[in-house]
Amino acid sequence: MKILSYLSSTLLIGVLVLVTSCNPSQQNGGALSNNIAERVYVAPGEHDEFYAFISGGFSGQLSVYGLPSGRLFKVIPVFSQDPEKAYGYNEETKPMLNTSFGPVPWDDAHHPDLSQTNGEIDGRWCFINGNNTPRIARVNLSTFETDEIIELPNSAGNHSSSFVTENTEYVVAGTRFSIPVPQEDVSISEYKGKFKGAISFIKVDETTGRMDLDFQVMMPGFNYDLAHPGRGKSHGWMFFTTYNTEEANTLLEVNASQNDKDFIAAINWKKAQELIEQGAFETMPTSYAHNVYDEETQMATTTMKKEVRVIDPTQHPGLVYLLPTPKSPHGCDVDPTGEYIIGSGKLSASLTAHSFTKMLDAIENEKFDGDAYGIPILNYDDIVGGVVQQAGLGPLHTEFDGKGNGYTTFFISSEVVKWKLGTWEVLDRQPTYYSVGHLMIPGGNSRKPFGKYAVAMNKITKDRYLPTGPELTQSAQLYDITGDKMELLLDFPTIGEPHYAAGCPADLIKPRQKKIYKLEENHHPHAVKNEKDTRVERDGKEVHIYMTTIRSHFAPDNIEGVKVGDKVYFHVTNLEQDYDVPHGISMIGANTSELLIMPGQTETFIWEPKQIGVWPFYCTDFCSALHQEMQGYVRVSAKDADVPLSWSLDGE
Amino acid sequence: MKILSYLSSTLLIGVLVLVTSCNPSQQNGGALSNNIAERVYVAPGEHDEFYAFISGGFSGQLSVYGLPSGRLFKVIPVFSQDPEKAYGYNEETKPMLNTSFGPVPWDDAHHPDLSQTNGEIDGRWCFINGNNTPRIARVNLSTFETDEIIELPNSAGNHSSSFVTENTEYVVAGTRFSIPVPQEDVSISEYKGKFKGAISFIKVDETTGRMDLDFQVMMPGFNYDLAHPGRGKSHGWMFFTTYNTEEANTLLEVNASQNDKDFIAAINWKKAQELIEQGAFETMPTSYAHNVYDEETQMATTTMKKEVRVIDPTQHPGLVYLLPTPKSPHGCDVDPTGEYIIGSGKLSASLTAHSFTKMLDAIENEKFDGDAYGIPILNYDDIVGGVVQQAGLGPLHTEFDGKGNGYTTFFISSEVVKWKLGTWEVLDRQPTYYSVGHLMIPGGNSRKPFGKYAVAMNKITKDRYLPTGPELTQSAQLYDITGDKMELLLDFPTIGEPHYAAGCPADLIKPRQKKIYKLEENHHPHAVKNEKDTRVERDGKEVHIYMTTIRSHFAPDNIEGVKVGDKVYFHVTNLEQDYDVPHGISMIGANTSELLIMPGQTETFIWEPKQIGVWPFYCTDFCSALHQEMQGYVRVSAKDADVPLSWSLDGE
Repeated sequence: MKILSYLSSTLLIGVLVLVTSCNPSQQNGGALSNNIAERVYVAPGEHDEFYAFISGGFSGQLSVYGLPSGRLFKVIPVFSQDPEKAYGYNEETKPMLNTSFGPVPWDDAHHPDLSQTNGEIDGRWCFINGNNTPRIARVNLSTFETDEIIELPNSAGNHSSSFVTENTEYVVAGTRFSIPVPQEDVSISEYKGKFKGAISFIKVDETTGRMDLDFQVMMPGFNYDLAHPGRGKSHGWMFFTTYNTEEANTLLEVNASQNDKDFIAAINWKKAQELIEQGAFETMPTSYAHNVYDEETQMATTTMKKEVRVIDPTQHPGLVYLLPTPKSPHGCDVDPTGEYIIGSGKLSASLTAHSFTKMLDAIENEKFDGDAYGIPILNYDDIVGGVVQQAGLGPLHTEFDGKGNGYTTFFISSEVVKWKLGTWEVLDRQPTYYSVGHLMIPGGNSRKPFGKYAVAMNKITKDRYLPTGPELTQSAQLYDITGDKMELLLDFPTIGEPHYAAGCPADLIKPRQKKIYKLEENHHPHAVKNEKDTRVERDGKEVHIYMTTIRSHFAPDNIEGVKVGDKVYFHVTNLEQDYDVPHGISMIGANTSELLIMPGQTETFIWEPKQIGVWPFYCTDFCSALHQEMQGYVRVSAKDADVPLSWSLDGE
Repeated sequence: MKILSYLSSTLLIGVLVLVTSCNPSQQNGGALSNNIAERVYVAPGEHDEFYAFISGGFSGQLSVYGLPSGRLFKVIPVFSQDPEKAYGYNEETKPMLNTSFGPVPWDDAHHPDLSQTNGEIDGRWCFINGNNTPRIARVNLSTFETDEIIELPNSAGNHSSSFVTENTEYVVAGTRFSIPVPQEDVSISEYKGKFKGAISFIKVDETTGRMDLDFQVMMPGFNYDLAHPGRGKSHGWMFFTTYNTEEANTLLEVNASQNDKDFIAAINWKKAQELIEQGAFETMPTSYAHNVYDEETQMATTTMKKEVRVIDPTQHPGLVYLLPTPKSPHGCDVDPTGEYIIGSGKLSASLTAHSFTKMLDAIENEKFDGDAYGIPILNYDDIVGGVVQQAGLGPLHTEFDGKGNGYTTFFISSEVVKWKLGTWEVLDRQPTYYSVGHLMIPGGNSRKPFGKYAVAMNKITKDRYLPTGPELTQSAQLYDITGDKMELLLDFPTIGEPHYAAGCPADLIKPRQKKIYKLEENHHPHAVKNEKDTRVERDGKEVHIYMTTIRSHFAPDNIEGVKVGDKVYFHVTNLEQDYDVPHGISMIGANTSELLIMPGQTETFIWEPKQIGVWPFYCTDFCSALHQEMQGYVRVSAKDADVPLSWSLDGE
């Protein structure tokens, strides 16, 4: 197969590049090692300078790290169940994982992006896409919890997502796998010309962050891989890379690697807004889930939405243009000024920067080179702003330092290459271990990057850490980019695949931290705010236990009158109002996870007792010197027993 | 309540101790900071010196860290579902979470312990207990996967577990919450005298590691908190701390804190073995699950066991003795020589070391001080070997450095205290941030500790790291213990609660690593070992897809003839035979997790299509430059459609 021989040769060159560019002094803990150690060491009690939000890829979650230490502070459950935190198990958060396909307990989390105001990171929310069952989530950066997940109809493989515009007007989400729209029972071989790629624009409420699917642009059946917003002069546009413009439906490694150039699709979303205002859209019936966690009631609810507004770009000149870009481009990155759109053709050796100014000029002068399904194709030579020649092999993604330099990852030659915007000359190259995918410089997708560190997110680990059987940790690497040459400082392992990341100075996020949930603001329908109101109620076969926790007991802790076949709801309120005093609760044999309840919070789990007897529950989070004593019992009687319902704490 | 005023005063003293023992130079990155940074820094490409296996507590899993870097290399799924690795979601591993209560997707993982030969760590297996629904798991240290989980009948709150004897003859598991044995519908108030505490001895096959519940000793209804084995001279005995010897059943923080002394129960398990051989046991009907993962078939199976051998210690003099120990003891730790059994009375300020020699002497001379339910109580003064006076407040756990010193954690005074075996003098104390629970020195539970580092596992985090909303990471701290004084080197955050840990030099484990699963050894019943055997078969409403993956395609990748209402099994074999080349697979809308398939492995997920259409699947683990192209489609037709079953790759 020709593609394999292509890859063999490129891999060979890759190895050569790797060897020649390797700097042994940074590898072997040589003369500089003291110095480097100190630069990543955060002494006990001191804080890291930056937050890094790294997606877990196939873990489905979003992980929070500190830089420069590389330490993991939290795995925020987003698209996957998390038995540790009860996410997707307790009654409050189960609805977060609802979709039009029913509950889906997992997804593939790809591209976190931080909310912006005036093109700068504002520290309010982090958006992230689920790739498999198309969804976008919003994480609240005052609680570090997932507040909202919206499903995307007409989409499949939600990959060119979730990137925000300069004032967080929109989060965009583009489909990677085109499908029949609407779905129909057709042969897969009818792909070409029939399948479509929906690109979704999700409006974000500027006060609450609440998402609303505003409209979709129904594009040709290419694969939409990545996206970035215009900024500054190009604000109002969104750019998407495409591959498989061949529209192959099988063995894509060969059949989708035929064209020398694919496209970057430039979508004028301000124009799309005008079309929506003018009613120039079709309303399509569909079905998708919108899941919202309400911090007041501490419950998530699902609303099934039933229609979506769709714009056909072939009917609206000026809405979309196609920018030819070498070959199967992955990254689609816009420099801080908004002038250059960098396309990383992953099967090419050079890097193309399109000029936004030239693009506008070509559009104005209608310098088109044909069209694809009615969408005008611009002329490559008219729009190219510069090319970084022979930069490396397999370019994937570019970030910027805000000082006029780009940093591009090369998967095949396994390196990060620093180059100069405008002159397009290569300034430095450093190897990665191994095969880097994306790269992150804090503020990288904004007008104001914080160009101190770069994090390379690698795809292969091999021998970098102590081995752990056939399955190895995934890995990131931290570089200091303040000097002329990048310096490798640290390897740090990651949870899941470190697919993509966003970061910012800690000071943008620290001041917004919520420390506890105030009891008086807890409007959970089953909250109990003091011990005297705790109780047990029976409603047919349902038993509701209204329970409280405080160091170091449950109220009540002795419960009788439960029967085999009952469905027992434990509604548990943590009465603590101090920082960092969660309580947990679990019941032997429950077919669900524990609860982990933050101060002032109420959570619910269900227990269906199967056997008579006396069964213990206990606190699962070490809370005090008498944590081990924090336990209780439920007596379970036979279905037809006449043991009355009773509950007590210390006999009262 | 008296306990609260007690705690207030002890907390006050604790704060004073904290302040006076705080060494600011280690806090503020002072003169020594360069030096310390270098001592925890593991340069890119270099390896950590030790493995640390830290339980996740309420996460239910076992985490693998490197020391001194504190970096996390793997979260091994044990008792909880893991959507990232498909553990508990794919058809192969679902049986691992079966219990007599049905499938339980979570547990509370507490005390990992490493297998031993001749009292030294041998690097073969790691055992760990599930506390909530009583279970013991065995993790294979050549694959870093959970190979086996055995449930424990007659138990509730499996806390004084899972500690191994000197040649891994047994893993022991003791109940924390006593219950009626067998279970019956009685009032909770009948606890005293009626409820029992089962202690389980699980035999371990010396070649395969396979576990088998050999017998249980049915103890009085106390709470059995922790355990450690005798070693050297005390080999053949196992020691368990008890609390709640008051046998309270409500508000234990008060009612179980009345007695000035509780007990360490010393069980002579060699004597128990003789009793079993003599038939001096009762066979009780019961029901518990034994789940085994078979590396050859790559499948887990569950066997429900139906009886257990029970020994009544009151009928067999010489089997169990009770050693009075101040107050509500937690840790029960045996020094490397086997002479001293350290009881950490968590509500006392001093630390008691019982002498094994004196214990034997008191037994021989029948110097008893009464009995508890027929079990002889020894006289405190006859058996005490030494007391570390005024060591701190709230002692919990002691480990040893192999150089004659003990290191004890104090929760209330929040410190680690170093003291000398034999002289019982305090040599050093260092604060922890904050409120340390357990401590780990590699080899700590063995005859041969590796006394270079100590890891403190803390219960409170507060301000130690960048904040993440109301829920903060949990934390560990690394100390250098090679000098006269302990030195705090590093704070490192952990996944879940760092409840307890075991560690050893990397060299004991590295040489046993499996890198791939060999295809020729794959006896999975649904494996397909080359592309030409891939196929799709229908059996009524079940459709079985026998699929392979290799860089960068699935075979087949176009499938038609599936219908709404079918149950579709994807049996996927990863044909790769290189290290670190997993493939993943997921299908849009599947109500389960992805698969993450190691080289040579076969895994299965189920998809139940709900709507007609053409639906994509793709590889979820970035595997090559053409990973994005690794995808396929399944066409779904209506229930009554007559589209024939067909499958292809590139039209063939």
